[in-house]
Amino acid sequence: MDIASILGVIFCACIVIFGIIFGQENLLETLNHFYDPSSILITFGGSFMCVLTMSPDLRGFLNNIRSFSLILKVLPSTEEETIHTIIDLSNIARKEGLLALEEAANGIDDEFLKKGVLLIVDGTDPELVRSILETELNCIESRHSSTVGFWDSLAAMGPAWGMIGTLIGLINLLYEMDDPRAIGPNMAVALVTTFYGSVLANWISIPVATKLRANNTKEIMIKEVMVEGLLSIQAGENPRVIEEKLKSFLSPARRTAMKEEGGENVG
Amino acid sequence: MDIASILGVIFCACIVIFGIIFGQENLLETLNHFYDPSSILITFGGSFMCVLTMSPDLRGFLNNIRSFSLILKVLPSTEEETIHTIIDLSNIARKEGLLALEEAANGIDDEFLKKGVLLIVDGTDPELVRSILETELNCIESRHSSTVGFWDSLAAMGPAWGMIGTLIGLINLLYEMDDPRAIGPNMAVALVTTFYGSVLANWISIPVATKLRANNTKEIMIKEVMVEGLLSIQAGENPRVIEEKLKSFLSPARRTAMKEEGGENVG
Amino acid sequence: MDIASILGVIFCACIVIFGIIFGQENLLETLNHFYDPSSILITFGGSFMCVLTMSPDLRGFLNNIRSFSLILKVLPSTEEETIHTIIDLSNIARKEGLLALEEAANGIDDEFLKKGVLLIVDGTDPELVRSILETELNCIESRHSSTVGFWDSLAAMGPAWGMIGTLIGLINLLYEMDDPRAIGPNMAVALVTTFYGSVLANWISIPVATKLRANNTKEIMIKEVMVEGLLSIQAGENPRVIEEKLKSFLSPARRTAMKEEGGENVG
Amino acid sequence: MDIASILGVIFCACIVIFGIIFGQENLLETLNHFYDPSSILITFGGSFMCVLTMSPDLRGFLNNIRSFSLILKVLPSTEEETIHTIIDLSNIARKEGLLALEEAANGIDDEFLKKGVLLIVDGTDPELVRSILETELNCIESRHSSTVGFWDSLAAMGPAWGMIGTLIGLINLLYEMDDPRAIGPNMAVALVTTFYGSVLANWISIPVATKLRANNTKEIMIKEVMVEGLLSIQAGENPRVIEEKLKSFLSPARRTAMKEEGGENVG
Amino acid sequence: MDIASILGVIFCACIVIFGIIFGQENLLETLNHFYDPSSILITFGGSFMCVLTMSPDLRGFLNNIRSFSLILKVLPSTEEETIHTIIDLSNIARKEGLLALEEAANGIDDEFLKKGVLLIVDGTDPELVRSILETELNCIESRHSSTVGFWDSLAAMGPAWGMIGTLIGLINLLYEMDDPRAIGPNMAVALVTTFYGSVLANWISIPVATKLRANNTKEIMIKEVMVEGLLSIQAGENPRVIEEKLKSFLSPARRTAMKEEGGENVG
Repeated sequence: MDIASILGVIFCACIVIFGIIFGQENLLETLNHFYDPSSILITFGGSFMCVLTMSPDLRGFLNNIRSFSLILKVLPSTEEETIHTIIDLSNIARKEGLLALEEAANGIDDEFLKKGVLLIVDGTDPELVRSILETELNCIESRHSSTVGFWDSLAAMGPAWGMIGTLIGLINLLYEMDDPRAIGPNMAVALVTTFYGSVLANWISIPVATKLRANNTKEIMIKEVMVEGLLSIQAGENPRVIEEKLKSFLSPARRTAMKEEGGENVG
Repeated sequence: MDIASILGVIFCACIVIFGIIFGQENLLETLNHFYDPSSILITFGGSFMCVLTMSPDLRGFLNNIRSFSLILKVLPSTEEETIHTIIDLSNIARKEGLLALEEAANGIDDEFLKKGVLLIVDGTDPELVRSILETELNCIESRHSSTVGFWDSLAAMGPAWGMIGTLIGLINLLYEMDDPRAIGPNMAVALVTTFYGSVLANWISIPVATKLRANNTKEIMIKEVMVEGLLSIQAGENPRVIEEKLKSFLSPARRTAMKEEGGENVG
Repeated sequence: MDIASILGVIFCACIVIFGIIFGQENLLETLNHFYDPSSILITFGGSFMCVLTMSPDLRGFLNNIRSFSLILKVLPSTEEETIHTIIDLSNIARKEGLLALEEAANGIDDEFLKKGVLLIVDGTDPELVRSILETELNCIESRHSSTVGFWDSLAAMGPAWGMIGTLIGLINLLYEMDDPRAIGPNMAVALVTTFYGSVLANWISIPVATKLRANNTKEIMIKEVMVEGLLSIQAGENPRVIEEKLKSFLSPARRTAMKEEGGENVG
Repeated sequence: MDIASILGVIFCACIVIFGIIFGQENLLETLNHFYDPSSILITFGGSFMCVLTMSPDLRGFLNNIRSFSLILKVLPSTEEETIHTIIDLSNIARKEGLLALEEAANGIDDEFLKKGVLLIVDGTDPELVRSILETELNCIESRHSSTVGFWDSLAAMGPAWGMIGTLIGLINLLYEMDDPRAIGPNMAVALVTTFYGSVLANWISIPVATKLRANNTKEIMIKEVMVEGLLSIQAGENPRVIEEKLKSFLSPARRTAMKEEGGENVG
Repeated sequence: MDIASILGVIFCACIVIFGIIFGQENLLETLNHFYDPSSILITFGGSFMCVLTMSPDLRGFLNNIRSFSLILKVLPSTEEETIHTIIDLSNIARKEGLLALEEAANGIDDEFLKKGVLLIVDGTDPELVRSILETELNCIESRHSSTVGFWDSLAAMGPAWGMIGTLIGLINLLYEMDDPRAIGPNMAVALVTTFYGSVLANWISIPVATKLRANNTKEIMIKEVMVEGLLSIQAGENPRVIEEKLKSFLSPARRTAMKEEGGENVG
């Protein structure tokens, strides 16, 4: 589980609560100033209903909300592990022939890599293998970018509906200025929606969108390592050349680390 | 009909009305504060007249407004159905020859797919088939993006004309500050245009633009499935290879679902 | 002449004037509140002088201002007319040979199409014809985008100089707060520049920029139809194939309409 | 020297000064309200120090400031002159052979064109000539875009530091509200930094960035004319074909003008 | 060490402090107005916790913070030095054969160049050399852009959390307006978070992001010089042709300077 994102989300909440109550005498009453059900309805309700309008269907909307948990997901395998797997496969292919990969494919968890290996085993034309795998890569990317788009839309809608709520509060307030002592608290209630909208955008939506976008980049890169590796195996390239090729995807530091610990399982 | 978008639009309206009247004593009078004909004219009139200025002609303007209903439209066929249809066609072509597709084409609803099949039956050069279909794809995309651009412009014009209305109200107000008790309500009236502009943008224009953009992506993807499939049929590829190729367009979950329910109608 | 754009510009002006005087007792005095020569100078003068600074030279600046009238221009020919013309040309070429096109070229109004036909008649190499026509297409697009850029800059400069004017007014006002009754009107005068800037941007500049951008897209598309058609004629393709190819540029509705009215003049 | 840009910059300054003093009784005192050394330091100092932080080194920073004068520079040659030069060269090459271009190269001012001619004279491989010239084109563009980036950054930093200055002024002011008569002028002083920031961005930085970007586009286009022309000369193409090809870079109006005045110096 | 960036950061801090205390009587007390621990916590804490949420993991977060020091780093070699090195290598390759480069590779500091030389010595296929080096270039760029993205996110989060802090302060303030003399200082405290957010963005985050982006462009360009050079060496091109080719990456001024000082070490 990805500890950084959990810590970030929790600490942010603590900071906001601390910022609200710091230096105040009556803590509960102060916190209560920041809790206003009708403001919650306008800001959160308005934002979520608008992204519902944008959603392809109800299921897609619910899936996108649930995608929040993806920021806690750690990718199942790193670039290094993928490179190791591919070199192992290339050694098998070299020693026992392409058909021997069928058995090895059973041990592979990654569906994408497995599919690629089976395509090779079936003797599919290299051009077709590349085309099938790249189509799949594009479709993965397009699905991810639709999820990221959901959080981007939410990040835009939060402050917008916060402002609509504040405008509603302000307009109502301006008609009732008879009691000067009530203007302050009424104004405060009007501002609470703006506060909610900013928090929705900056505490949750923008970080989630950014994190998912970064995860997508990483996953696509690992899958590109797979495509390059699979095509090299199919072309019958030397395992050492394949290793050299795939290591270009690593940073120098990780390349050195990989060389030190993993030298022996490369034939 | 797309229930998500209808629910989103209706719930949003309810939330705004609820936010306005919540906690107010005189509901009708409060609602009345948010109804100002001259503000409606400035904000909505100004926004729509400006997008009229941008429109190619009156008919294009009216068509674009009418495109609002497209957010309720569900695409006529899913990727899965398209893949099924293409595999059926490839089986026919394999068993009875390309000319047999002419009859099958009569049963196809999608104009784009039908045209593609007829081009193949006519023995058109594969390069020409691809070029014709891709030109059509580009033109579909350019028509869609002009519709999306209409809603994007409206989303930008709403708040802008809201602000122009508020400025007009403010300037008029600043010349008439003799009666301090009238300042509040006059200020409220000035703010109502900003409220209208935000609602026009965030309740309607942005969600519609985003939804239509997503629908376009989905439709183009389905049509790309068709282009790939048609060219494979023309090239005489094996129906099973075609199926494998086209399934790359699906997510793993939908691929599995398709395999389970549809296995038998693939020859 | 393009009626939509004229109506849009005029109606917008009426809406602004109506919004100003609606509900006011003294119409002329109210309108007068929105007329302030020094504010006009700051907002319009500042904006135009800044886009003058950006202009390549004085003539380019004046041409760009004059390009305002282009939003009223209707493109000389539609896609359908262009397709008809090209099919006529292809019939001539097929029946009487490429050289017979020289005479036909005299009847063509569009300079771009005429040039293309003459290149074909001269027996220019197809690659060179494509390269010459595409270079010209790129240059047309780059000239158009420089005009659009002028209006985009004006759209950005309007509100910016409006704000500079308001700041000047505010700073002057803050030094002269002895007479509380003068603060309101002085503040109103300061706000008038912001009003001018918003109107300059949203009433004129943004719609003109958007309209010209759309016109450019349309013109480029028509010229792409010409390039495709000319190269097909030169390649000696069948007029019916050329028609099929070029109709991909049309929407299904327009394609059907064209078939109904124009079927007979295709050989 | 480019008169449009000088006029623009000077007139803008006059408009700002006029806007400040218009309708004021005591001109010098009013102007004095807009002169505040510490505000100048915060806004201009802060902005320039931040772009210094972004600069590659001190020399690069000073060069970028000096690039201001480039908006007054007129490009040394127009497209028409370049086309004439290239046609002359192609005539020489055709009549006296490629080696005769060496002498002609001495008469060429433009370093880029000269280098290209010498590459041809040396008998360099056409692919290599194109690759060398396009690499140079890319590097020119990347140098230009770094200069444009400097002015873009300044345009963003101006208002940002203006706002920081205003915040500093406001916070200090809010602690010293004992004398109500001093609040106005103190507030005015706080706003002066925002004024400086807007003027820095809109009077200078944005117009300079836009102008330099346009100049770059123009220069790159002229150099592309040169590359196309040089490669055509090397390929031994007919001077008339070269002329036809290069004239595609001109607008129809300029093409006609060129034909009328320059017809005779084309062989 | 890069003096420009250090000077920029330090001078900016001085300007902010000077702007705060200028004209104030009690310097320490004034500075104290701008120091508020709970505001620091909200603005800086909130911003950093949000970018922590976005980070791939804790180590990546700390590495990104540490990347601040990279703005002080000067790139290890200039384009000129790289060109010299490559020409030296090409002379060795020409005189003593490609295998003699192995020894020369030991003297090369740059890991990227060294790897390229060793690939050539191993007799790797030119296409594969280009593919490996370009993959590595893409991965370097993607790593850099993730670091730049960190500072971009921080630049967006600073003002956002500054505003959230100000909203919290405002809302609390509006409930406690009994003592009119406390409103000013309380408002000032609320504004301090906005001040912190602007300073975090404009003093640190934006300049660091811009500087790192420029450094990346420069480093990639130098590495592109290496790729071009290595492939030319492998193709056995003449050292003088290689020099000509690589010098296209330099500005004319630097090209002339290089010719003057470095003419003799080109064989």
